[in-house]
Amino acid sequence: MNEIGMVYLVGAGPGHPELLTVKAVNLLRKADVIVYDRLIQEEVLALGNPAAEWIYMGKSACGHASRQQEIHEMLVRKAREGKTVVRLKGGDPFLFGRGAEEAEYLIDHGIPFDVIPGVTSALSAPLGVGIPVTHREMASGVAIVTGHFSTEENEQALDFSALSRMPTLIVLMGVHTAATISQRLIEAGRDPSTPAAMIQTAFWPGEKTVIATLATIAEEAARQGVKAPATLVIGEVVRMHDKLKVAAHELQNGLPESVCTEQRASELAVTLTH
Amino acid sequence: MNEIGMVYLVGAGPGHPELLTVKAVNLLRKADVIVYDRLIQEEVLALGNPAAEWIYMGKSACGHASRQQEIHEMLVRKAREGKTVVRLKGGDPFLFGRGAEEAEYLIDHGIPFDVIPGVTSALSAPLGVGIPVTHREMASGVAIVTGHFSTEENEQALDFSALSRMPTLIVLMGVHTAATISQRLIEAGRDPSTPAAMIQTAFWPGEKTVIATLATIAEEAARQGVKAPATLVIGEVVRMHDKLKVAAHELQNGLPESVCTEQRASELAVTLTH
Repeated sequence: MNEIGMVYLVGAGPGHPELLTVKAVNLLRKADVIVYDRLIQEEVLALGNPAAEWIYMGKSACGHASRQQEIHEMLVRKAREGKTVVRLKGGDPFLFGRGAEEAEYLIDHGIPFDVIPGVTSALSAPLGVGIPVTHREMASGVAIVTGHFSTEENEQALDFSALSRMPTLIVLMGVHTAATISQRLIEAGRDPSTPAAMIQTAFWPGEKTVIATLATIAEEAARQGVKAPATLVIGEVVRMHDKLKVAAHELQNGLPESVCTEQRASELAVTLTH
Repeated sequence: MNEIGMVYLVGAGPGHPELLTVKAVNLLRKADVIVYDRLIQEEVLALGNPAAEWIYMGKSACGHASRQQEIHEMLVRKAREGKTVVRLKGGDPFLFGRGAEEAEYLIDHGIPFDVIPGVTSALSAPLGVGIPVTHREMASGVAIVTGHFSTEENEQALDFSALSRMPTLIVLMGVHTAATISQRLIEAGRDPSTPAAMIQTAFWPGEKTVIATLATIAEEAARQGVKAPATLVIGEVVRMHDKLKVAAHELQNGLPESVCTEQRASELAVTLTH
């Protein structure tokens, strides 16, 4: 028998435990080791095998290269101990978040792995507040970038002229760089009056949505105290929020601020066995 | 008690039953009515409440407006009968697929509804064959459009100059219009030698991936008999396929071509109760 374990790079979705995939829940339950970071919600972790080894690898917002290297080495070390390792990644593992680098490192070190896609907050955060990212009459396409510039080089890699002409633009991790991004888009020709929304933690208690224009969204989000992680949406589709936000949102309402993690986990487990 | 039921617009993900969200499975199990179309896989349907009323509303590739109107009216009618209605949408309900129109129609007719995000094949199809849509060194962003032009107007709504400058471009439903899209991108300045991939039904038996260049992908996909629905990926990230495709793909291997639907459903049910 092969003594090397297996690493699963698993998309954890936007944070709500019912928005995990069935596969993600099954892997969390059988994991020997669970490696997670600061973007994973407690209610998601509560679904994991209680007997697993839990390893917190929280990264600072500045994204230290050395910390990423530590994660790579941890995954390889645990796999070589024969463990089934679940590496939880917020959202989808291959949309930002350096999942591809982790996969490359595992390949380079001969570690068997699989990648499980997840619900990305790039789509679910707008959806959660009644904003479809495309619309037959308003938006024929969508672009997704990250506002988390770890280096100036990253920022320069963005082609703001092209981005300014996409019907809908989604900026993940958009809180800290919203002012820069808005300004660059306006300079590139985007109408400053384009509707814009900043969405804090959709599908989670503490959800907050700020609606403004491209010109004012950064200032307005700051004034209303929006905190990271938040998703910035720019485009005519934001106008749909007024109409569609009135929809009943069970998932938002399902987790009161005061929820007890263990209690919630057992409720979910019951739900799964129906 | 309110006699009006509830409509759930539910993302069914890319087709594999384990890539449904937990919420989607729970809703399928409690639905009185399940409305689906030709893009929903049998193994997903097998998870639904057997006692539900099953309504097939398959649309032709030409997207008749009248058929969409029939779907709208069916959702309203069943909700007014007091039913819990699950409207299954392939992938994510608010990324193409006219989910926003269905939501608007429900609002206009006073029907309570909720929208449940799903795993989109725009991300999961590339992921399933080892292609991350973004990459720290290769792609700072991604654009997603649909190749399913129902009218010439739709095609003209696409800004090929902007799209040609996005590091990664994903075209959903890209089989029939791949030649047109490639040509327009090249005319707009995209290098004809840019790597391109056409992915047929990722995470499903019959998966087929064709790797070529922007200039040759349409012809090569046709030559190799790729059928809809398929996802077209254009960009340097396609180069990762050679390296990452060697990953073990449990989900792909888990569903042999000959699988019996009922048997598979019971296996999944067992998995869920672990």
